[in-house]
Amino acid sequence: MSARISLNQATIRYADLATALHAARTVGIPAIGLWREPVAAVGIRTAAAWVAESGLRVSSLCRGGFFTDSSTTALADNRRAIEETATLAAAGAPGSAPVLVLVPGGLPNGDRDLAGARCRVRDMIAELVEDAAAAGVILAIEPMHPMYAADRGVVSTLAQALEVAEQFPPEVVGVVVDTFHIWWEPGLEAQIARAGRDGRIASYQVSDWVTPLPSDVLLARGMPGEGHIDLPAITRAVENAGYRGDVEVEIFNREFWETEPVSVAERTVKAVNATLGLGT
Amino acid sequence: MSARISLNQATIRYADLATALHAARTVGIPAIGLWREPVAAVGIRTAAAWVAESGLRVSSLCRGGFFTDSSTTALADNRRAIEETATLAAAGAPGSAPVLVLVPGGLPNGDRDLAGARCRVRDMIAELVEDAAAAGVILAIEPMHPMYAADRGVVSTLAQALEVAEQFPPEVVGVVVDTFHIWWEPGLEAQIARAGRDGRIASYQVSDWVTPLPSDVLLARGMPGEGHIDLPAITRAVENAGYRGDVEVEIFNREFWETEPVSVAERTVKAVNATLGLGT
Repeated sequence: MSARISLNQATIRYADLATALHAARTVGIPAIGLWREPVAAVGIRTAAAWVAESGLRVSSLCRGGFFTDSSTTALADNRRAIEETATLAAAGAPGSAPVLVLVPGGLPNGDRDLAGARCRVRDMIAELVEDAAAAGVILAIEPMHPMYAADRGVVSTLAQALEVAEQFPPEVVGVVVDTFHIWWEPGLEAQIARAGRDGRIASYQVSDWVTPLPSDVLLARGMPGEGHIDLPAITRAVENAGYRGDVEVEIFNREFWETEPVSVAERTVKAVNATLGLGT
Repeated sequence: MSARISLNQATIRYADLATALHAARTVGIPAIGLWREPVAAVGIRTAAAWVAESGLRVSSLCRGGFFTDSSTTALADNRRAIEETATLAAAGAPGSAPVLVLVPGGLPNGDRDLAGARCRVRDMIAELVEDAAAAGVILAIEPMHPMYAADRGVVSTLAQALEVAEQFPPEVVGVVVDTFHIWWEPGLEAQIARAGRDGRIASYQVSDWVTPLPSDVLLARGMPGEGHIDLPAITRAVENAGYRGDVEVEIFNREFWETEPVSVAERTVKAVNATLGLGT
């Protein structure tokens, strides 16, 4: 199997941290993408100890961001997330990535100023850059599918995420390449190459686009190979751009959540091996 | 009320052509956006006679396209649609627009070559340009929201639609600016201005983006003012780009479909007047 798969906790969302670590280890997945909520449920110190004990790499922490309200609460919470990212990456096996995934946030209630919200994302990142640099953490802006622009993420394309990221040093601000969000983007390959030139690809996340879209579009993702995305082509572009980190499988899908985690982890490994054409 | 509202038949989809014409006239809407199916249900000659009798302008015919299968059937059907567009626009009141809205089509079954499908859209339009020019019809490429890229429309942004359109004369190939599809597009205002410079805005369609997204995303649209789109800003950009045609209200929404058509038409007029800041 590929030595670069990472199991993002969102794929087995109902599993607690211990169960998630166990599932990855059981099927031989060498890395895990962590989420703040299950980490908080056991406390950051215990979480770090368990991660160290697991021998797994940490490929990212999801998620900071939700900037568009521009509140000081959001800033304080993101600073905590930066510290957690540093702690967990330090606890992970060598090759762990101190990457904090940033979900930009949607429009504030009743606000239709999309351009203004997009500017606030940049302004809020500017506020966090010093803390991230001091902690050795990479802030990874995640462009989100335009169907989430109103209520979840106002940064809608990889090009747009790069325009923000490029205002900051590449060792502190990068981007997430998530196939589900950007597979449709015109000129995607060129944007991935652009991200690679500065070393801005902080995380590569894969899942597939299935149709018909399920009723809850937040849970609309499929296992690699089950949908319409040319995953080998995008993976090749990401590799050609110089990315050599872990490949996180992040699938929001209720059916998977209701399945026993080890079995989902097994399916994940099979799907990645059969679909991505990933270098080892 | 604004003298430039057009009622797109999709807003009152369950109404037949006679009912739709009646609804628009009853509430004083001066134009109608027609669909091929209800026209075909009475036959093109009868439809044209009824349109002439109604005194309404025709603002567009929906829809041709569905190119990505690249079949000769698709070409023949589009040629029929071009003829229908010319006939209906000629039957409409002065100021009618001989505009055929083109929905590009999704990926063919089992095909993941999005770039290839996008090229076929251009190739198929090239096949139709001569017929359209001869009939005095404008082919209007409709960029569709990226959530439809797999199964309905592979042209995902106004910029991308313009890249195709600009390969042909502006009096034959234009674009549709539909707020629902492109409100999130980075640099939208610049793209609208670009479309205007060549006179490529063949149709302006409005509806709103509501959250949470309904379970069937094809029926996800709201009445102007009910959602997150800054409709006055986009309308201003379209006007600044020189567009002076009708403003079609096209709302796919089951609740409206199940409401009495005259009452939906009334709500449409009120919503447009209250929201768009449309010049008269």
